[in-house]
This record gives sequence, structure tokens and C-alpha cells, in this order.
Amino acid sequence: MSQSVSSSEQPLSRLSIEEQLAVIQRGTHEILSEDDLISKLKEGRPLKIKAGFDPTAPDLHLGHTVLINKLKHFQDLGHEIYFLIGDYTAKIGDPSGKNATRPPLTEEQIKANAQTYAEQVFKILDKDKTKVVFNSEWFSKMSAADMIQLASQQTVSRMLERDDFSKRYAAQTPISIHEFLYPLVQGYDSIALEADVELGGTDQTFNLLMGRTLQGRYGQTPQVCITVPILEGLDGVNKMSKSLGNYVAIYDTPGTMYQKILSMPDTLIRRYFEFLSFKPMDEVDALMKEMEGGRNPQEIKRVLAEELIERFHDAEAAANAHKSAGNVLADGELPVDLPEVTLTLDDGQDALFITQVLNQANLVKNNAAAKDFLKKQAVKVDGEVVDPSFSLTSGQTVVIQAGKKAFAKVTVA
Amino acid sequence: MSQSVSSSEQPLSRLSIEEQLAVIQRGTHEILSEDDLISKLKEGRPLKIKAGFDPTAPDLHLGHTVLINKLKHFQDLGHEIYFLIGDYTAKIGDPSGKNATRPPLTEEQIKANAQTYAEQVFKILDKDKTKVVFNSEWFSKMSAADMIQLASQQTVSRMLERDDFSKRYAAQTPISIHEFLYPLVQGYDSIALEADVELGGTDQTFNLLMGRTLQGRYGQTPQVCITVPILEGLDGVNKMSKSLGNYVAIYDTPGTMYQKILSMPDTLIRRYFEFLSFKPMDEVDALMKEMEGGRNPQEIKRVLAEELIERFHDAEAAANAHKSAGNVLADGELPVDLPEVTLTLDDGQDALFITQVLNQANLVKNNAAAKDFLKKQAVKVDGEVVDPSFSLTSGQTVVIQAGKKAFAKVTVA
Repeated sequence: MSQSVSSSEQPLSRLSIEEQLAVIQRGTHEILSEDDLISKLKEGRPLKIKAGFDPTAPDLHLGHTVLINKLKHFQDLGHEIYFLIGDYTAKIGDPSGKNATRPPLTEEQIKANAQTYAEQVFKILDKDKTKVVFNSEWFSKMSAADMIQLASQQTVSRMLERDDFSKRYAAQTPISIHEFLYPLVQGYDSIALEADVELGGTDQTFNLLMGRTLQGRYGQTPQVCITVPILEGLDGVNKMSKSLGNYVAIYDTPGTMYQKILSMPDTLIRRYFEFLSFKPMDEVDALMKEMEGGRNPQEIKRVLAEELIERFHDAEAAANAHKSAGNVLADGELPVDLPEVTLTLDDGQDALFITQVLNQANLVKNNAAAKDFLKKQAVKVDGEVVDPSFSLTSGQTVVIQAGKKAFAKVTVA
Repeated sequence: MSQSVSSSEQPLSRLSIEEQLAVIQRGTHEILSEDDLISKLKEGRPLKIKAGFDPTAPDLHLGHTVLINKLKHFQDLGHEIYFLIGDYTAKIGDPSGKNATRPPLTEEQIKANAQTYAEQVFKILDKDKTKVVFNSEWFSKMSAADMIQLASQQTVSRMLERDDFSKRYAAQTPISIHEFLYPLVQGYDSIALEADVELGGTDQTFNLLMGRTLQGRYGQTPQVCITVPILEGLDGVNKMSKSLGNYVAIYDTPGTMYQKILSMPDTLIRRYFEFLSFKPMDEVDALMKEMEGGRNPQEIKRVLAEELIERFHDAEAAANAHKSAGNVLADGELPVDLPEVTLTLDDGQDALFITQVLNQANLVKNNAAAKDFLKKQAVKVDGEVVDPSFSLTSGQTVVIQAGKKAFAKVTVA
């Protein structure tokens, strides 16, 4: 395993076992097992904390950061973080050729992707204290005989218990035999790293437990498996995902991030604080109490938005982001109290031209002012300058800005 | 693959395709497919004929030779025989540790076993025309990634169709994942050898077809799979096996071989000729006709016994073996017309002493003669000298010899 990253030594936390446990437990789905974790914490040494990632080119959103945040908690407690890039199987791809979305990646692609990944992850983790390792390091030395040996450590029926496999088997969707080897490969990574703890999403429970089992078979103390839940997106219903459009990307501009966080339903506030904020839970609880006592939820959301903008951008961007509506906003920023306007089409009308929209949404005093703004290229729709030919049709929702101060979220019914 | 065995070049048979096919078809269970075989024969080149063997220390019996005989047919037709020793998986053994009967073998054990195997096999095959190859030759160079690649070529459900796997899965008997890799390893041997034909027992059908499938996946012309049936033992019912005691070992002495063959039920004669004799089938058919016409079946069995004794010993041993009962027999030989006697115990009697047996079976004139033979150590039971304290109990069947000429197969009811 690569020890080449020079990690500046950090003392273990002086927190009591109970206090450390509380930090670790926050926002986890399951700890298998808590007793084992306590035993390991009691040893008083830096634990090896593993989390594995595919070397795909990621564009991380807040949903992904739930896991990274948990790594950060461990890092802050003085444990060693192993950010494991699963490049070995990525180089193989899907050799059955059935999964066109998993072509084999080249060495160069993997390196570039890992770099992109690391850049994003190090907005949360301390780069100097994080060991980035590639599992090809041990697997490239592994022989076919070693692989057979590894394959002997699990049974077919155990593998078919994995949720996705059992469903596919029942549905008679082909499962290639090598797919049974991949969880073993992931499990073997824990042996190679001598991991004490492995973190993953709830969908990774089976694979994490595989590592735990294999370590026992190979004479190591089995790792503790910790799963974190899947974060809901801004709609408060579905999991956060790019394709659903309910996400906050960590590369979103401060303004966009601010606007998105403030648009989320109040029901999400507590969960988002629990999973995304680094404020201690007693501070979070105090904020929730203020909200119950009548404080405007938008203000509470602003607290979270500012913390996240500071993390992914900087303190200045965070300080500017909260400027209230009507004040001069930084480029791309939106006011907190963005007015929402719904316009209707007349019978037989297909679309509303931008001058009509500006008028009806009260973004301008009159038609002449609308034309004047358009002429000066001072009208933006979703951040893009538009000209007088621009129109909106039924069903569209956009954010419109006229000049520096006038904003509205306009929906055409 | 090892080409080191210098094979004296042999011309291809001048037989027509139909005639060659008849030779190959004799005594086979299945040819998959005959059309493919015909196509390959038509190419007019020496075909690569593969048969795989575990490097266990074998003590071959006639049941094993059915397959070797089929290799011999191909060899006589001018094709190349690859006697493949599956040493690669033997070195791994059963890494799950569940099968105590499959410990990993060392290089030395494998070599010694292969040598023992070859010595026996070359009583049938022409040593100079047979290539002995070890599959570790290609597998020792194989990486874990290559194994994953290989594993991707088959599906879990296809593997679970194999008879023994499906039964074990249904019975919830654990199947280790590496057991799914072994048929692929065997199949890959066909790729490495570029085999045209693979031979095996009927229990190997699945594995042979695996080779056929994999060759297609790896861009080779799929091999023809030929299975030979399991030979019945001398009881005419169960498969020939050492543990059932119904076998003729190729290391049996000429006398034992002769006696065993002549003891088999008449119903087996035709099958034994078909699978074990190298006489053309028309000659065999002629012999069967003679038997139907009233010729003593024992004489027909003698023909087969002599052919086999000549093959596994020599012509002289074969010529001596048929000496009729009453003549001086070579050590260990038994007369053809061995009398069978059944004795009964009186009420309350536990056993018959050897003097009683000799008397009642008419092997001696009187008690005095019996005692005299015993005193001279001239009484043998199953070939071992016995003294007057020897007795037989109910259910025993033995061959008893008193002096040089008196023999009987005695059963105590």
C-alpha cells in the first residue's frame, strides 16, 4: 500500500470513547458492530479508515459529501483516512461486454479522474492527512491462482443473497460469473489495507460485510462497517441526483448554491444540518428550537448555505451570498426573498414575449422601460442575456432579472 | 504448449470419412456434433484430440480404459493425442478447505503421479505419438485479471445448470465460488491447446461443452465433444469401481485377469468387446453370432481375456492363461471351468472348519487327505495358504485350491 503521501502526524482526539462514538454515530445508518468499534477505539491508536471510489470522472454534489463528511469526522478524531481508488476493476471494465456503460478505462483516464476526484474531496478532507491509494497496487501482482483462492472464500448462495443479484437471478437476467468476483476484490482491498473501518452508502452494506468476512478468513481482525444514508434531494422526496435536477453541486456558484439551499422545503432542514454541517449537534438542536419558536426558516437555511459556500468556495463568497434582495448582488447571486409570479396566457395565445413578461411581472414600470432594459442588454433569463424576440410558453419556470435590482421567479401557467 | 515430445510423424488414415466416422462412433455415448466432426475430418489434417486427467495416483481398471481406447482409435487414424494433466488446479487443491480429500499436491507428487499414469496409459497409447502436457504451463502465466476476464464468459445460471451444482444448490449444500471457475479453467485448456476434439466420460459433458463455448468466445472453431459411457463392472449392474470390487485392474496378474473376465455374466460379453477389444466390429459381430449359434460363452470370453492379457502383459502370458482346468496352472491362474459349490451350516453351527469344507466340496477324498494337504501347506484360500484353524462363516464366497489340481469356488449359505 502506498505510504508515499507524507501525512503530518496528528494526535488522537482527547475526547472520551463515548464522545468519539457520538461524533461517529451522527448521521450514520448502521454501525456493524458498535461493540467492535468501541474495542478498536479503546486501543488508543489511529484507526485505518477505508472508503472506496470508482475512478469515474465525478461532479460531486452534496449527496456524495455525506460519506466524505463522515471520513472528515474520523480524520478530525485523529484517524488515518485511506481514499481508495478502485482502478483495478475499472481497467478491466465489464469484460462480458453486456454493460456498455462500463468500458475499460486507460491508465491516463484513471489518473485524470482520480485527480478530479481528489480536488473535490480535498475541499472537505485535509489533503496532507489523507492517503490516496489505488488497488491495482496489490491486484496487479495477483495471480489467477490467488484469485481462485479468494473465490473459494465465499459461496454462491451467499453471493446470490445480495439484493441486486437475487433480483436479477429471480428475473432470469444473466449474471456473469466475474460479477461474483468484484465484491471479493473490494473485500480483499480491506485485507491489503488492514482496514479497521470501512465506510459506504447503504447500498454498499453487502460489499462492506464481505471485507469484514474475508479479513476474518485471512486471519485479520474484521473491520467495522459503517453505512451512511442516501441524502434526499431538494425536492425532499427523491435521492439527490444530477439526472433528477434536485441537487446542489459542490461546483455550483455561490449564488446558485445559496438560492438552491434556500429553496428547499423546511422539512429537510434538520436532516441537511445533520449530514452536511460540521456544527456540533447541540448547536444544530438549538437552531431547530429557534425555528420551532418562530424564527424564519429561511434564516436557518442561510446559516447552512453560508457554511457550505465557505467550504466549497471561501468565507468572502459566503459573506456576500446573504445580501438581501434589493441590494446589489454579486454576479450569479439571487436575493433571498425572490418573488414568485405566475402569469397566464390569454385564450389562443401561444407565448408571452419578454416585454409582456417584464410588464406583467412588475419588473419594469412600463413598456418603454422594458424596451430600454432590453436595448441595454440588462435583461437576463436564468442568467443569460435575452433580446426582445425572446418569449415564454406555457409550463416554463425561469428566474428573470431586469437591471441590477429587479428579480422574479416567473412561471407561465 | 509443450511440443517437446518428438512425435514420429504418422500419415493420416486412408479410410474414407464414413469409415473413420464408424471407428470413432464405436462405443461412444454422444458426439457433439457429428456434423462438426465430419467437417473437421474433411479438412484432411491431423486433428488435436484432447483428454484431461487429474494428476492423482491412478491404478487404472478396464473402466478407465474405455476413454483411452477411444484416444487410441484417433491415434490410429493419424490424429494428435494430447494427454493433458490438470496439474494447475491440483496444486491449488480445494482452498475452501471443505473437501479434505483434495489436499493441494506438490510439484513432486504431481510428477510422480503423472509418471504412474503415463506408464499405464502407454500400455494402450503409442508413447511416441502422444503429447503429455500440463496445464500449469499456461495457467501459471495467467493473471488475476485474465481470470476475471475468463469468468466473464459464463453466467451464474448456466453454471447452476450443471447437474451436481443444481442438486447441491437445491439441497442448500454450500458451493464455493471457485468451484464455478474450475470448469472455466478446464474449458480454457481447450483454447490453449486449440483442441479440435475433447473426450470425456458422460459425467464430463458439461465441462466439455464449456470448452466448446469458450473457444467460440475466444475466436476459435469450437471443439467437438465426444463422451464415452461408464463401463459396468463384472457384476453387470454397477459401474466398474475399485470400491465395489467388480473391477479388472490393468495391473492384475494374467491369472486373475483371466479368471475375472471368465466370471462375468454372458450379458456383458458384447459390451465388453465393443468398449475394450480392438477387434473390428464385424469380427465381434461374428463372434456374437457363433455364441448365439451355441458356442460356449466361456470360449468367447477367453478370446477377450487373451486380447486384454496380451495388451497389459504380453503374448506369452496370454497364451498360458487359457490352460484348461486340470492342467498345471501358472501361479495365480485359475481353471476356466471352476466348479461352484454351495455349502450349508447345520442348525446351531457358526462356521465350517477348512477340513470340513475340503471334504464337503469334494476337493479331497477323505478327512485324512485333507489333513495331509493342510500339513503340507498345500491348501490355499483366495491364494493364501491356510492352516487347520481356518474356518468359513455364512455368506462367504472364496476360491479354494487343494494341491495342484483341485479347485472350487465355495459359498457358505
